[in-house]
Amino acid sequence: MKICQIVGYKNSGKTTVMNSLIRYFSSSEMKVGTLKHHGHGGEPEVVDNTDSTTHIESGSLVSGVQGENTTQLTFEVKMNLDKLIQLYSNLPIDLLLIEGYKNASYPKIVLVKNEQDFSHLSDLSNIIAIGTWDEKLLNNNKFPTFNINNLDANIEQLAEYVRRC
Amino acid sequence: MKICQIVGYKNSGKTTVMNSLIRYFSSSEMKVGTLKHHGHGGEPEVVDNTDSTTHIESGSLVSGVQGENTTQLTFEVKMNLDKLIQLYSNLPIDLLLIEGYKNASYPKIVLVKNEQDFSHLSDLSNIIAIGTWDEKLLNNNKFPTFNINNLDANIEQLAEYVRRC
Repeated sequence: MKICQIVGYKNSGKTTVMNSLIRYFSSSEMKVGTLKHHGHGGEPEVVDNTDSTTHIESGSLVSGVQGENTTQLTFEVKMNLDKLIQLYSNLPIDLLLIEGYKNASYPKIVLVKNEQDFSHLSDLSNIIAIGTWDEKLLNNNKFPTFNINNLDANIEQLAEYVRRC
Repeated sequence: MKICQIVGYKNSGKTTVMNSLIRYFSSSEMKVGTLKHHGHGGEPEVVDNTDSTTHIESGSLVSGVQGENTTQLTFEVKMNLDKLIQLYSNLPIDLLLIEGYKNASYPKIVLVKNEQDFSHLSDLSNIIAIGTWDEKLLNNNKFPTFNINNLDANIEQLAEYVRRC
């Protein structure tokens, strides 16, 4: 399973880039899985008053529901990223795109809004490429760089960086 | 990880028994996980317009969101029960209570509404005990049997059957 992180500061376009990559790879040969870190202490939205939430309220730490096509698991278990990735490795997927977890050490594509973001890149490890909206940064000579403006036209270039992850 | 199924025909009290057992075991020494089969071709309820559902719409087969305390994984992947249980075995739980999947072969407690249900028990494998609302069935001499009426008073007996799973 290939692993690639998409990270960036707030409002840097992570959601847009993630969905473009999911569409691109899932429409080609690859089975794609995704994992997103819900920042700022938030929680995933869950539907209230289902059997699943009732089980959690009763004390279950992991509550799963399997339907005809969809299965949903909800955990109230602290898991680090490595452990979560281990779960994914038991699923039939070829590519795991991870949104966020900036400080993790997996190969990553970093979205950079401006020169200030650019100056913080030395804090991050394993940068394969960067994407930017700022034309001044397109010709930096530190990282392979793609233009997030007009993502559709640049999707092949971006996909190639993911393949290098 | 101990595994115990709670199965029964429609409206036999599975939900009530499940939640009693979750409360009982999670308030004692055990870390409990649960898995429910959504019968009749239904699907688990999901919150629309989240990043997770957008990833699935874009083609992701497995979409996860990790929050501060809660992690939720949604799969659009056909998985049999054994594969799902393998996922649970990577999580820190001691007891997996499974609601439904009547025809699976794990040790099970069967909830029986009436003599007609009772007559179908030979279709099922690995029955550890049965629970019933029907006083006439309490003294059957085929299976260890507990009374679902007044579940709170009989919870120790029921829990003992789960420990035998």
